[in-house]
Amino acid sequence: MSKKPSLPKGTRDFGPEQMFKRNFIIETIKKVFEKYGFMPLETPAMENLSVLTGKYGDEGDQLLFRILNSGDFLSKTQPADFEEGTKSLVPKISEKGLKYDLTVPFARYVVMNRNDITFPFKRYQIQPVWRADKPQKGRYREFFQCDADIVGTDSLVCEAELLAMVQEVYKCFAFDAYSISISNRKILEGIAEVCGAKEEFSRFCVILDKLDKIGKEKVFDELALLGLNKQSLHRLDQILALSGNNVEKLDALLSLLNESEIGQKGIAETRETLDNLSLLGFLTDKVLVDFTLARGLSYYTGMIYEVKPTTIKMGTITAGGRYDNLTGVFGLEGISGVGISFGIDRIYDTLEELNLFPQAKARYSKLLIVSFDDAAQKHSLNLLSKLRAAGISAELYPEPAKLKKQLGYADKKGIPYVLLVGSEEMKNLQYTLKYMETGNQDSFSIEDVIKHLLEETN
Amino acid sequence: MSKKPSLPKGTRDFGPEQMFKRNFIIETIKKVFEKYGFMPLETPAMENLSVLTGKYGDEGDQLLFRILNSGDFLSKTQPADFEEGTKSLVPKISEKGLKYDLTVPFARYVVMNRNDITFPFKRYQIQPVWRADKPQKGRYREFFQCDADIVGTDSLVCEAELLAMVQEVYKCFAFDAYSISISNRKILEGIAEVCGAKEEFSRFCVILDKLDKIGKEKVFDELALLGLNKQSLHRLDQILALSGNNVEKLDALLSLLNESEIGQKGIAETRETLDNLSLLGFLTDKVLVDFTLARGLSYYTGMIYEVKPTTIKMGTITAGGRYDNLTGVFGLEGISGVGISFGIDRIYDTLEELNLFPQAKARYSKLLIVSFDDAAQKHSLNLLSKLRAAGISAELYPEPAKLKKQLGYADKKGIPYVLLVGSEEMKNLQYTLKYMETGNQDSFSIEDVIKHLLEETN
Repeated sequence: MSKKPSLPKGTRDFGPEQMFKRNFIIETIKKVFEKYGFMPLETPAMENLSVLTGKYGDEGDQLLFRILNSGDFLSKTQPADFEEGTKSLVPKISEKGLKYDLTVPFARYVVMNRNDITFPFKRYQIQPVWRADKPQKGRYREFFQCDADIVGTDSLVCEAELLAMVQEVYKCFAFDAYSISISNRKILEGIAEVCGAKEEFSRFCVILDKLDKIGKEKVFDELALLGLNKQSLHRLDQILALSGNNVEKLDALLSLLNESEIGQKGIAETRETLDNLSLLGFLTDKVLVDFTLARGLSYYTGMIYEVKPTTIKMGTITAGGRYDNLTGVFGLEGISGVGISFGIDRIYDTLEELNLFPQAKARYSKLLIVSFDDAAQKHSLNLLSKLRAAGISAELYPEPAKLKKQLGYADKKGIPYVLLVGSEEMKNLQYTLKYMETGNQDSFSIEDVIKHLLEETN
Repeated sequence: MSKKPSLPKGTRDFGPEQMFKRNFIIETIKKVFEKYGFMPLETPAMENLSVLTGKYGDEGDQLLFRILNSGDFLSKTQPADFEEGTKSLVPKISEKGLKYDLTVPFARYVVMNRNDITFPFKRYQIQPVWRADKPQKGRYREFFQCDADIVGTDSLVCEAELLAMVQEVYKCFAFDAYSISISNRKILEGIAEVCGAKEEFSRFCVILDKLDKIGKEKVFDELALLGLNKQSLHRLDQILALSGNNVEKLDALLSLLNESEIGQKGIAETRETLDNLSLLGFLTDKVLVDFTLARGLSYYTGMIYEVKPTTIKMGTITAGGRYDNLTGVFGLEGISGVGISFGIDRIYDTLEELNLFPQAKARYSKLLIVSFDDAAQKHSLNLLSKLRAAGISAELYPEPAKLKKQLGYADKKGIPYVLLVGSEEMKNLQYTLKYMETGNQDSFSIEDVIKHLLEETN
């Protein structure tokens, strides 16, 4: 019983200091989401395994956390099941799992509530998800996703709004050292088409996606093995070599893809998205058209984009794209949408590394009342009631402990002011207000203390 | 694959309307917690079973959701384990469970971080917990707890602060039809002592706790079986019959418990708590001293209290008490604390039943721009950028759909204003602003629309 307790591998506690910073990120993103008309949704931690399995590929299925049926979970099993091993046993002893992402539960919600939802439906969702991944630096078994999607419309206004939200959120963090790479799955399809790889599109994407990792030469070797001839590889080389600003690149690509209808459509969509973004009052030069961008997830069908810091090594901090068939797996066809996902953990690390969190310590209380005996404690309760009635977060050190101990408490908790209440102070109704950072102190009535603190807040 | 998806039994989705109301409750409570100097903590959904089991009694253990070990979960099992049944099998195939309450994970956190925590430690925690209970009306398998605790001090200032927070929170909800019953475990011990039931204290409490359910006569029958003689039952009868205000009841009890030192201590603590509450500026007549209050949980050692609505049937909506040994199960002795728990689901139902939620629909957007063709859409993007730059939550219906459809969208989403943008409006730069509730409309420049909406917000 008295063994030292521990946390499950890959999970974390968030204490007050981390919560302060995480809430700063989450509240900021929430405000932007709501400013753009997105509404919150929360779904349960547990989903039926019939909802989860088969949606994330074989690898994903293996990373699902499964919940043992309650009660006599062996009741549906037979001795033979154990001999056959885990795969045959699992469905008989486990019917539920922890959610693996926010997208599949969202799709389930849309299908279950399709008669009550007003489309286009703009929802955001900020919740933890769970994956039985091997824990390592920056990869956790419980982590938060922060998604917003617009479903039920294919208007390209939505694409631009998401790119605008990226810029609004990062502006709130005073973080500017990032770039947004965008492309369009239809452009990729066009490239595959003119390279003669139309039939092998998904393998073509997988290979192209490795450009960053293995370099152009090896990618071209693999594409040759896939069946691309020299002429095709030459054409691809031309496309990858396109340079200039976004307009110039898109213009040049238009002529290289002039045989591909879908490619042309992708280019037109990208142009319109950038135009819309500009009309929304945002800079398009934060956005870089990048024809090598493939994004792993095969369900994207239109715009795809990724945001990365430019001055530190951090990987993708925000990403998303358009998909044509969110709810098809649940039998509801034709629900198109476009989404965004902010990576809260990486944003946290980015702001930390660049020292962009608000400088204040986690200040939950503005003032601590320090008292030295029981009479002063009683007197202080009345002061406390006045401070709080004025809307000031304040607390009383609950025991008449030594001054050093009480000041140490204020210091460690990041409380900026202390109010000293001793017998002299009680007699004169003038209390010593001490500013912790400088050690400066002066005497005030409680009314003046309140006035001072309220002025300082404004 | 296309089978209709469903939710696991006893779990819920929270759509925008419910989220609006739930967030209203949670944000209000959070603000009060922080005003009183409590700081947030979040712990993972999963805990090691070694942390959870044995903390909630046998029944609690059975209600834990257990997570199947990932990978080859059969690797530690032998054929004999299956024959012996679930009990012997569980520990070999499952090492983690979902948290059952917030108290045990909090105790684990305190023990693991005891060298970094500044005591007294005031933390609040608002998170879901999971129990494999039989779902029924008002009882869910995933539900939220909302706790605040002060640990590491036995100052009775803390008791009063919690009772003050009850009153502050419910005042924010404009909800006054409730009463707070308080007692003290030491008073109960004193009563048991003078009734000769000191050695059977916990069974004495369990029986007394049934007063509401089975009535005095049956309770007295059971107490007689426990060994209480006629004289003791007579004395108990006198205690239960005490009437008058809090001071009168405590005075009368003091003489009835004059042989019990612990009973006297309980009375003194209760008096001081009420005095402190009064010094904090709160009404003590919201608080009713109730000597029959027992509270099920055996770990309480000082003040215990419960809050119930008085005009509707709802059960306990807030409760808590003082405990002496939060972390003893994890080998850290002597950490005393006192806590409060708000029942969010029942508060939700209470505010709903009494019609106390803010009257507005879930308003996430303040204004919808309605446009009728592609040119108006483009024009509207620029208007949208001005509205948002002014801090107004606004959106554009992303397609130039029929007027009726766009107005229906605003109506269903509870958006109070729409701005109509047609060719005439674009020419004159005067847009029709329509107030949905009344249907009133008038023409304004975008600057005047912004001014109007900002004024209305203030």
